[in-house]
Amino acid sequence: MERYDIAVIGAGPAGVSAAITATIRNKSVVLIGSPKISDKVRKAHRIDNYPGLPAATGEQFADALKAHLDSLNIGITEKRVSAVYAMGSFFSLQADEDMIEANAVILATGVTAGKPLPGEDKFLGRGVSYCATCDARLYAGRPVAVIGYNAESVKEAEFLSEIVSEVEYFPMTGSAPEERGNLKVIREIPRGITGGLKASAVATDAGEHPCDCVFVLRDAVAPDKLVPGLKTEGAHVVVDISMKTNLPGLFACGDIAGKPYQYIKAAGQGNIAALSAVEYLDNNKKG
Amino acid sequence: MERYDIAVIGAGPAGVSAAITATIRNKSVVLIGSPKISDKVRKAHRIDNYPGLPAATGEQFADALKAHLDSLNIGITEKRVSAVYAMGSFFSLQADEDMIEANAVILATGVTAGKPLPGEDKFLGRGVSYCATCDARLYAGRPVAVIGYNAESVKEAEFLSEIVSEVEYFPMTGSAPEERGNLKVIREIPRGITGGLKASAVATDAGEHPCDCVFVLRDAVAPDKLVPGLKTEGAHVVVDISMKTNLPGLFACGDIAGKPYQYIKAAGQGNIAALSAVEYLDNNKKG
Repeated sequence: MERYDIAVIGAGPAGVSAAITATIRNKSVVLIGSPKISDKVRKAHRIDNYPGLPAATGEQFADALKAHLDSLNIGITEKRVSAVYAMGSFFSLQADEDMIEANAVILATGVTAGKPLPGEDKFLGRGVSYCATCDARLYAGRPVAVIGYNAESVKEAEFLSEIVSEVEYFPMTGSAPEERGNLKVIREIPRGITGGLKASAVATDAGEHPCDCVFVLRDAVAPDKLVPGLKTEGAHVVVDISMKTNLPGLFACGDIAGKPYQYIKAAGQGNIAALSAVEYLDNNKKG
Repeated sequence: MERYDIAVIGAGPAGVSAAITATIRNKSVVLIGSPKISDKVRKAHRIDNYPGLPAATGEQFADALKAHLDSLNIGITEKRVSAVYAMGSFFSLQADEDMIEANAVILATGVTAGKPLPGEDKFLGRGVSYCATCDARLYAGRPVAVIGYNAESVKEAEFLSEIVSEVEYFPMTGSAPEERGNLKVIREIPRGITGGLKASAVATDAGEHPCDCVFVLRDAVAPDKLVPGLKTEGAHVVVDISMKTNLPGLFACGDIAGKPYQYIKAAGQGNIAALSAVEYLDNNKKG
């Protein structure tokens, strides 16, 4: 397996900036995220304070970032990273059903909206999953639930329905799949995940919905769930002014590294994170 | 005298970004610097890693920053700030012969090239000055020296020659004034400033050049000389991740706040500094 110098997770302004600077510094980079640049960016109404690009719409800004990547032949790998493991001298990323290896990692995944559901943390890995593609086969022929926070969750629920016995889909946003056969949409608000040794149901005000696994599909996985051992504070990764985290070789930038949530701040931190990663690689003679 | 909410010192990417965000946040802002955007930026050969503006020349990048300021009706005040005084509830800036007052200050002056000359620190305020406009009259009819690091120093030396008895100009870059009357160009490298209680000469390998005052005219004044009491480390101001310095209400961003020296990092930090200044003003109900 090819091992990259640097894996950048997230293709918003922070991740794009990190990938650009790392590439210019002659490192091999895999940029993992939405192939059209973060949807959240693309939907921004207007951006007034990104110096040099006055009064840009979200579409214009996302297009400018994409054009910049294209000009440097930097592609975007469309995968969802559900876990990052520090293996000692390198990192291993669970990216859908693949593993990706890199000597340094830059987290630029944005912030997760809201707190975990009651029971979510407790049952993670024991009947709670963040990755349908990874774990679907474990539940072949069994009933599962999907708590879906975005449009992609719909696709994942449809994929799941081909493998499992029944999918109950709880739409947390406007997006919901069409009901068909074993795929049902439950318009109740999940209040928590219940169970004994393993998760066994989604609890709502109306009652309990039994299942063998609850897939919680958000835009971003909470950072301490994504990277075991990562030091966080609330929804944010703790970083120093060089964007270093508590784990050597792992850097964070953009919204996930704390407020303010601003595109130009994210892009600036992406640059710092990339240069810190380059320095780390050079010091460890891996780059 | 009008007191601004925020004074931004320096019109490179960090200062421009800070002024843009502070203006959008409805604060009154004075942006002090070169009216055409930092000369150093304008002379950059090519900028490859400012996301959204691929392969920009320094001219193009500076023009884009200027156009952004223009679109928000943000002017640049062309003055040289030689001192910033914390007055308790506000700041007072010595800007050429004027005083400018602001409730918060953002330092974005870039880094000074090189170390101070031997004797420079010791005699600062006692025969060493960073501001010809401010201190020329103190030396009316007396001999002075100018150690000039940029094109503006030439103009200041010419101005000095109208007031003092003699100017000896030591060119540290390509720029030198035309010799005339009491204005002489000395092509020797200054090794230090000597004196007793006060500075009394510029020392070179060839000997000593007596004078009553040595004007050291760089692009930027070292931060701890600029702001008495400011905590620095080498050439850099010590900041936290919110761009706060040790002085309440004073923020720093860009190269002066430390490496890496990168435009996108500077612009990102300018944004953070502005939002931290806005928060400071709001907390102190001054904004």
